[in-house]
Amino acid sequence: MIATEKMKVGEQPTGNPMEISVIRIQGSGNGPRVYIQANVHGAEVQGNAVIYQLLEFFRQHPPEGDVVLVPLANPMGINQKSGEFTLGRFDPVTGVNWNRQYHFDASLIAPFCEEYRHAEETVIREAFRGQLRQHLHERLNSPWGLTCGQHLAINLQLMAVEADIVLDLHTGPISARHLYVPEYARERARYFNIPLNILIPSDFSGAMDEASFSPWWQLSEAFAKFGRPLPVMVDAFTIELGSQEKLNVQAAREDALGICQYLQHQGLWSATQVVECEPVTQHACYLKDYKAFFSPAGGQVEYHAAVNQPLAAGEPLVTLWHFNALASEACERRDLALHCDAIPVLHFASASVNQGTELYKVMTNTFPL
Amino acid sequence: MIATEKMKVGEQPTGNPMEISVIRIQGSGNGPRVYIQANVHGAEVQGNAVIYQLLEFFRQHPPEGDVVLVPLANPMGINQKSGEFTLGRFDPVTGVNWNRQYHFDASLIAPFCEEYRHAEETVIREAFRGQLRQHLHERLNSPWGLTCGQHLAINLQLMAVEADIVLDLHTGPISARHLYVPEYARERARYFNIPLNILIPSDFSGAMDEASFSPWWQLSEAFAKFGRPLPVMVDAFTIELGSQEKLNVQAAREDALGICQYLQHQGLWSATQVVECEPVTQHACYLKDYKAFFSPAGGQVEYHAAVNQPLAAGEPLVTLWHFNALASEACERRDLALHCDAIPVLHFASASVNQGTELYKVMTNTFPL
Amino acid sequence: MIATEKMKVGEQPTGNPMEISVIRIQGSGNGPRVYIQANVHGAEVQGNAVIYQLLEFFRQHPPEGDVVLVPLANPMGINQKSGEFTLGRFDPVTGVNWNRQYHFDASLIAPFCEEYRHAEETVIREAFRGQLRQHLHERLNSPWGLTCGQHLAINLQLMAVEADIVLDLHTGPISARHLYVPEYARERARYFNIPLNILIPSDFSGAMDEASFSPWWQLSEAFAKFGRPLPVMVDAFTIELGSQEKLNVQAAREDALGICQYLQHQGLWSATQVVECEPVTQHACYLKDYKAFFSPAGGQVEYHAAVNQPLAAGEPLVTLWHFNALASEACERRDLALHCDAIPVLHFASASVNQGTELYKVMTNTFPL
Amino acid sequence: MIATEKMKVGEQPTGNPMEISVIRIQGSGNGPRVYIQANVHGAEVQGNAVIYQLLEFFRQHPPEGDVVLVPLANPMGINQKSGEFTLGRFDPVTGVNWNRQYHFDASLIAPFCEEYRHAEETVIREAFRGQLRQHLHERLNSPWGLTCGQHLAINLQLMAVEADIVLDLHTGPISARHLYVPEYARERARYFNIPLNILIPSDFSGAMDEASFSPWWQLSEAFAKFGRPLPVMVDAFTIELGSQEKLNVQAAREDALGICQYLQHQGLWSATQVVECEPVTQHACYLKDYKAFFSPAGGQVEYHAAVNQPLAAGEPLVTLWHFNALASEACERRDLALHCDAIPVLHFASASVNQGTELYKVMTNTFPL
Repeated sequence: MIATEKMKVGEQPTGNPMEISVIRIQGSGNGPRVYIQANVHGAEVQGNAVIYQLLEFFRQHPPEGDVVLVPLANPMGINQKSGEFTLGRFDPVTGVNWNRQYHFDASLIAPFCEEYRHAEETVIREAFRGQLRQHLHERLNSPWGLTCGQHLAINLQLMAVEADIVLDLHTGPISARHLYVPEYARERARYFNIPLNILIPSDFSGAMDEASFSPWWQLSEAFAKFGRPLPVMVDAFTIELGSQEKLNVQAAREDALGICQYLQHQGLWSATQVVECEPVTQHACYLKDYKAFFSPAGGQVEYHAAVNQPLAAGEPLVTLWHFNALASEACERRDLALHCDAIPVLHFASASVNQGTELYKVMTNTFPL
Repeated sequence: MIATEKMKVGEQPTGNPMEISVIRIQGSGNGPRVYIQANVHGAEVQGNAVIYQLLEFFRQHPPEGDVVLVPLANPMGINQKSGEFTLGRFDPVTGVNWNRQYHFDASLIAPFCEEYRHAEETVIREAFRGQLRQHLHERLNSPWGLTCGQHLAINLQLMAVEADIVLDLHTGPISARHLYVPEYARERARYFNIPLNILIPSDFSGAMDEASFSPWWQLSEAFAKFGRPLPVMVDAFTIELGSQEKLNVQAAREDALGICQYLQHQGLWSATQVVECEPVTQHACYLKDYKAFFSPAGGQVEYHAAVNQPLAAGEPLVTLWHFNALASEACERRDLALHCDAIPVLHFASASVNQGTELYKVMTNTFPL
Repeated sequence: MIATEKMKVGEQPTGNPMEISVIRIQGSGNGPRVYIQANVHGAEVQGNAVIYQLLEFFRQHPPEGDVVLVPLANPMGINQKSGEFTLGRFDPVTGVNWNRQYHFDASLIAPFCEEYRHAEETVIREAFRGQLRQHLHERLNSPWGLTCGQHLAINLQLMAVEADIVLDLHTGPISARHLYVPEYARERARYFNIPLNILIPSDFSGAMDEASFSPWWQLSEAFAKFGRPLPVMVDAFTIELGSQEKLNVQAAREDALGICQYLQHQGLWSATQVVECEPVTQHACYLKDYKAFFSPAGGQVEYHAAVNQPLAAGEPLVTLWHFNALASEACERRDLALHCDAIPVLHFASASVNQGTELYKVMTNTFPL
Repeated sequence: MIATEKMKVGEQPTGNPMEISVIRIQGSGNGPRVYIQANVHGAEVQGNAVIYQLLEFFRQHPPEGDVVLVPLANPMGINQKSGEFTLGRFDPVTGVNWNRQYHFDASLIAPFCEEYRHAEETVIREAFRGQLRQHLHERLNSPWGLTCGQHLAINLQLMAVEADIVLDLHTGPISARHLYVPEYARERARYFNIPLNILIPSDFSGAMDEASFSPWWQLSEAFAKFGRPLPVMVDAFTIELGSQEKLNVQAAREDALGICQYLQHQGLWSATQVVECEPVTQHACYLKDYKAFFSPAGGQVEYHAAVNQPLAAGEPLVTLWHFNALASEACERRDLALHCDAIPVLHFASASVNQGTELYKVMTNTFPL
């Protein structure tokens, strides 16, 4: 049972509706409910190809739990061009990142704990989800309205809030595949079979993954203070699939299989093993050790360090050229390196940079996942 | 003694330095130290005219304290065009608001209180300022570098941190003059003679005014917990001077006089009264009651409500036109109003809006300042 | 008989169709066919209000000729935001002006003249229109495709090519009302009752007005070389309605009445006089005397000269401020004037300019229309 | 003798000068004068690396003619960011292509021919160059000023006008190396050793290469009408070095050598052979056969055809995906091909396209150079 419906998530000045396609696959049994979206950042298209491949897989292997797939999840961002490239990371009117506008109000945790301190887990699960859902509806119906990005975010979140597993498919600029892993889910994260893994805490700063797991994680932490252990009942991950502005539908098959291996481990198919991936080497670090290196000057850049290749302290990272200084007394090039060992995860997409441009993001103090 | 120096705050890809002019007026006595900057948002030019008029005033009435004036404080934002207008609110690479990148690490408060619990006020003042200054230097010298906006912000903040009074001159889009007032400074805020005043709490979210007063305010709050009253030793305000993309040097004289009246009250001229303004009616509200109204649909807008004119619930705010619906069954216009009394402070600058565009910002639950 | 239909003129990356509303009013008799469009430049919204008022007028005074009205004619341009303003003058991918992409291939004139040298006027009219229409269809069906802007332009032009009168409604940045008048139509142009009028030659550089009149004008010129006088059979005008980013539906009534007075003179209502406007003073100049004045330096601008107010040589035009030079040896302001008498028509919309920014456009060597 | 000087070519709103570095190499004898510039389109950085390698080569092999090198030739374009990429193809205020603003007024040809009909070639050369130079100076000194882009262009052109050989270094989006060759220079163009060559006519549409050769070519054509053969005295080429936003200084060595091989053939080194390249297969076509293929719909794109690889009619060009149509009745993918044989030269840089986006540019009706 696969059905697709259109959902309106915005409206342009001409009155033209901004719609998304929501694909619903009805589960054949009692598996977990899964929500997967792609392309919330407009230039990050590869997640759509992964959804295409997941859909192919689900057709061959009908899941036991309900699955919702949303490709092209942010039409406002996807349709925004500036020059040849997609200016899809932030609202072009306000600059606000499309993936920092989800909602969670932590003040609901304390009174909830008070009320449900002695309730059963299944009761807690339904009641808490109900409160989250209700908060989202209230926000959506505010007489003051919502920003363009909040309106989109709440609509997506109203689907995600029903799920036990939430996956948000992104990419980096020029990037290796990497995964944001909430620390509590570290063990099962390895089933995604992604080489680079960043372990993140329970903070909320507006992203979809945090908006999905933070309420449940903070709930668990609050119960722990009362001495009652409560599992975190929702898993959520941001998966970075490689580089933006690239589409390769064949290559997406591999990422789809890693996702299915994780979903299988979580019980989406209970009876039989439907997938097994060839394991890759998996590195991890904590978020505090996931560092950005910013350009110390303006110039033109050669990026030397390959992503997903360990780089020793002092090894060539970039050469920063100052072509305006050719045949002059001034410095015409600077060879830059890091002062510590690292694994480069991604680098900037353009060869021309301002002082302060984020040249590389790297993992430091890494360890096996 | 007036001197101007250039300070480098960034570098473009061609190696072209981004410089600001720092005007230093040496005080004739022992008045407060004052720091005033303008145009951190690139389209908000009127503050430069106010600095011009302040400089004229200071030449006629030499201040007793040192004054630092920085017009055109954000060359990266000011020089960024997109179409005819200045795209100066956020970094065009990352979308980050130029006025959300200042630094304050609240974790320094607790150990400082511990150490200086019984120190004299003048000792506390110097020691705390010293720690703030040192934190900024450490941040500026991070081996990982800083973003373009952080680099600018820290350089500006290193000047502001030395001051007892910090004024950040901004404008709204289409806007009445209004003032952000930290609640502790409410009494003296009226000397600015600005009609609309928003009272803000001690939170820090990255703006220059907050970065200047929050450390001192939170310090005061921390001492209060120990039972020791400590005044907030720094005043900081964001002054919104009217509409962006407009320059009127003559009209800036009036705002300069209001600022001087406040500075006089704070002791910048001790011996004589140098200025007295004709008082205006002053309304105020709390930040939580300063509300944005977002467009419920896309369309073309007629803005009916005048800024700085009280508007009763239900009175015409905007008409939202759907010209694509002319001569059809669909709705061709929507007349929108607020559900409560308000004073409009500003409205959007364009006649074409998306669903979710911030149409108006209004004060509700207002009271005399 | 008024009917509205949707027409697809483009498609966004999400597959979202870009549609326009085409309003068709069937004439009650044999009047001229009229085509009117608005908002091809995305920020120039006021033409939509004029179309609204024209529609009201046509409902009260049914025209004898067929009328086609297209508000919001360029959804791609209208929906393109960059910061608060609409970046609607050019394709954001290529930079090409949306109003320079219409089609006319002058090479069809010579063979047509050869073939129809002795034909009757009504035969010529139908045959020539047929060839223009056919060229447009061929272009639309090219196996290589068309650019986004060409695709829109040809779709609009296929409607305009059927009309005897074509009006393209625009605005300037900060602007007085003005009209582009093909020289042959100078006499009847005064019925529009627009104060400033620019007389243009038969050249074609890609705009809708030129694309509509140039073929017929060049045809007339070609016949004249054979010694056969042939009237120019199509009228086309670009009407500039004031300033961009402003919507005032009430004020649009006045412009609608001027347009109707012209249309009445052209026979859209034969029996009775439906409109008479209070005449305004009308100035004119030739296109070669319509001059742009560019900023000699970067800086912040006060615009002193009012639009539609004659300005003598040497009178204040703008003050260009260099606030980075305050309290320094360098020049802090430049007062600029024109070296000849002129009537300012429009000025730039922002207070911050680069060297080379078009500060003003002015009419010189003016004369009564 | 190598010297570098700064030249001011513009000014930003903050008063910040836009400067270029002009590198002058004084020739050791009587060779041709050469002018080479790079990076007029802001994202096309690789030409700077070629200038670096040329400079290295000239240091080892001092040329006999004077050489002027201008890297980073358009600071306004290079410093313009929008998102991560450089928005450097057109003026962000007006949309006008930075490489369509050079100047040539063809009306000077006829009177010049009249006057110099019987003059000697060397007299013609100096007199005509003198007139071109004078026209540029007059334009630069217009009391009305110039646009930002014209001001830059005239300043660059004043250097280029003194040269016998003008090379403008560009890149495509994702592109093979290719060369624009004026038809008269076809024979010697092969020394550049570039695989794909487009033969262009004597028209002028504002680009640097045309602005450099068109006056001399049209002069030659005008003399030919009088029956006097006159060689085209200036060579000018636009060299497209591969893909934008990529910098590879080592790879630039190869292009520098091809350029030197051409310059050697033109006599820059007379005594000895300084360079010989391994020849590559060289294809050519006429400009009219250099075709763009535009997307028939919006969607996400997989680019299948490799650049510089002949592609037979009907072979896979791109797959255009409509992910909004997954699991629906609508078409989810379209496989597109060309209807004729072609050699792809370049393709679009983003995976997300509007209807009408230029997907590929290809050479058709090709032949050996």
